[in-house]
Amino acid sequence: MNHDTSLNALMTGIGRQARAAAKVLAAASTETKNAALLAAARSIRAHRDEILAANREDVAEAERKSLGGAMLDRLVLNEARIEAMAKGLDEVAALTDPVGQEMARWSRPNGLDIARVRVPLGVIGIIYESRPNVTADTGALCLKSGNAAILRGGSESFRSTAAIMVCLQEGLREAGLPAEAVQSVPTTDRAAVGVLLKMSEFIDVIVPRGGKSLIERVIAESRIPLFQHLEGNNHTYVHAAADLEMARKIVVNAKLRRTGVCGATETLLVDKAVAGTHLAPLVTDLLDAGCEVRGDGATQAVDRRVLGVAEVDWQTEYLDAIIAVKVVDGLDDAIAHIERFGSHHTDAIVTDDAAAAEAFLAAVDSAIVLVNASTQFADGGEFGMGAEIGISTGKLHARGPVGVEQLTSFKYVVRGTGQVRP
Amino acid sequence: MNHDTSLNALMTGIGRQARAAAKVLAAASTETKNAALLAAARSIRAHRDEILAANREDVAEAERKSLGGAMLDRLVLNEARIEAMAKGLDEVAALTDPVGQEMARWSRPNGLDIARVRVPLGVIGIIYESRPNVTADTGALCLKSGNAAILRGGSESFRSTAAIMVCLQEGLREAGLPAEAVQSVPTTDRAAVGVLLKMSEFIDVIVPRGGKSLIERVIAESRIPLFQHLEGNNHTYVHAAADLEMARKIVVNAKLRRTGVCGATETLLVDKAVAGTHLAPLVTDLLDAGCEVRGDGATQAVDRRVLGVAEVDWQTEYLDAIIAVKVVDGLDDAIAHIERFGSHHTDAIVTDDAAAAEAFLAAVDSAIVLVNASTQFADGGEFGMGAEIGISTGKLHARGPVGVEQLTSFKYVVRGTGQVRP
Repeated sequence: MNHDTSLNALMTGIGRQARAAAKVLAAASTETKNAALLAAARSIRAHRDEILAANREDVAEAERKSLGGAMLDRLVLNEARIEAMAKGLDEVAALTDPVGQEMARWSRPNGLDIARVRVPLGVIGIIYESRPNVTADTGALCLKSGNAAILRGGSESFRSTAAIMVCLQEGLREAGLPAEAVQSVPTTDRAAVGVLLKMSEFIDVIVPRGGKSLIERVIAESRIPLFQHLEGNNHTYVHAAADLEMARKIVVNAKLRRTGVCGATETLLVDKAVAGTHLAPLVTDLLDAGCEVRGDGATQAVDRRVLGVAEVDWQTEYLDAIIAVKVVDGLDDAIAHIERFGSHHTDAIVTDDAAAAEAFLAAVDSAIVLVNASTQFADGGEFGMGAEIGISTGKLHARGPVGVEQLTSFKYVVRGTGQVRP
Repeated sequence: MNHDTSLNALMTGIGRQARAAAKVLAAASTETKNAALLAAARSIRAHRDEILAANREDVAEAERKSLGGAMLDRLVLNEARIEAMAKGLDEVAALTDPVGQEMARWSRPNGLDIARVRVPLGVIGIIYESRPNVTADTGALCLKSGNAAILRGGSESFRSTAAIMVCLQEGLREAGLPAEAVQSVPTTDRAAVGVLLKMSEFIDVIVPRGGKSLIERVIAESRIPLFQHLEGNNHTYVHAAADLEMARKIVVNAKLRRTGVCGATETLLVDKAVAGTHLAPLVTDLLDAGCEVRGDGATQAVDRRVLGVAEVDWQTEYLDAIIAVKVVDGLDDAIAHIERFGSHHTDAIVTDDAAAAEAFLAAVDSAIVLVNASTQFADGGEFGMGAEIGISTGKLHARGPVGVEQLTSFKYVVRGTGQVRP
């Protein structure tokens, strides 16, 4: 067999096993699924040393290949991170099982009883980069929602992923579920991703998690629907009727609480009507907190530390302590800027004017729109949905945080007493 | 400009206008949208003669090209069909507007108020074959749900579609909405479909409506998500605990009420345990009603009119007065047959055994599963959803009948009082 043929055979085998396991999982009780999750958490704790050893090998190789510091940081596991992973599994076990829930139920005049009932999607493919904990987190969410998972981690975390996978599969077996319900692709061959993205017979949806280049590749190549966001180029708009103290608190948090998350604010828009009073304190707060500010003319006039801004800045997701600042000519101008340059992820207005707030919330076409709150709340946990597998900026099926509910589909269950259609 | 360039320019122009119109439509009130629908209905009634004249030209050309009788029948309009079209628009106006509905709303411990609010999807592309009434039906559903529509009808109905489109756009203008909210592709060039299927920048979802070869082409070529079903290879399973009289009534209706609809039963499964009493009357009813029956050995033994059945029959959506019949070895065997050969559209069990019914409803992975009712109820109107744009066998976003609700997405609207994330 040549290389392509054997890779295809390997991937098809994984796909077929996932499809078969998905049928078992779809029918599994909440108790059984939870037992598997709790057993997997115990297994991760019990095999801590093996996971750490595997991770040390991954890290050593990454250092030999001179991978960047940020990537290395994401790759490294330690006792605290392993415990967090195990705790994550315990928490997913505690979530409400969406499968079997009646989303709606009604009767027809002819007596037909119609229910819309949640069912699993089937098989979910996850393609991710260096963080090994994604293996446990996403595998757990798929399992809880009754879906089989095929995981494809980054080659740099190959050994760590394999060690964690052993624990997940141990948990599945202990609960009497097929170990193939959660599989990882057992090769670092980059061509495997290409094959995975075309296995529409075996995979119902793909969740890519990683940097922009990974997501772009997946969007370009996938023949399977995606839950994904390319980027979170988010805005906080300080409206003419914004309370200054509230705005200061929100802007600093939205930009700087954590700069690397997809809910971070990347551009601050300040209404011309309050630029005189609000712009200077807002910009000074950011500068004093160590944030680089790139501003338009009005913003540069506020503080000599403000750098110039180019059009490309309005389109940039910095994921860093950098912010673009612009003075806008009222609500419509702010909305137009967000619609033109934003990525439809998460955008906020700060205002005490209820009508302006509602106009903003209605007009901005983003997955999450907020008034008087930090964009950093863009997170399934903060929404009360439990853990999330990611955030989607697509409009089909899942939008915003993708939790266990969003990993389900539904079917119509119709109960009759002999009805026929006239 | 060469041909490809000018076609691309034409299609891009349509896409851009649709995107712009979608923004206006998303913000339009229910009253405005309804006014446009009612005005369009009036316009269709007022322009009845022009529509009929355009249709006569289409029909004359189809006859010159010797198009088949079924296609010709779908193409022909008459006064009754035009009135039905206008009435359809009135009915869509009377539907509840899904846009702006709060699907859920909850508060977080930190005081954040989170609402999940329905919003339009954006721009919907519809690719269909000969029936000119699809132009009005689907255009209306898109408009009601706040979406712009790009319609691509069959070349055989080109003039009829154009005449109906004039009325829809007249309705839009009369209500002060952009006429470009509903557009049709102004060329019969088959290459236009290929371009449409790749316009992911301008179209959010494509609904193909037509025969299997059209759907297969769309599936193969589309870079845009689809709401579609390839076929409805549906089953009615007469269980061991089925009431014979109920089963007879349901089976004849499920197969023969209308044989050309996607909810028609194509295969009858009869439980071995009741084959002795139930098989003969069920098969005789069908034969006497003029249905061709293709059966396994046990079924052929019942009546000499029964023809033999081949494996390909289990996979066939006849859309005709033909049925495949098989005696199965109990519930599990019936479920296994449906899972192996079915198309996950609509499947029914007839039984008085509640446990068997629930097992069937849970195990059969179809968009619609029924107990003691005809599969011909697979229809948005019968479900109480009003008109439907189609039935989806996909599991993402829309499954089963696709009505105005399924033509929407949602956004999260978060209202705070200055909250920042710890």
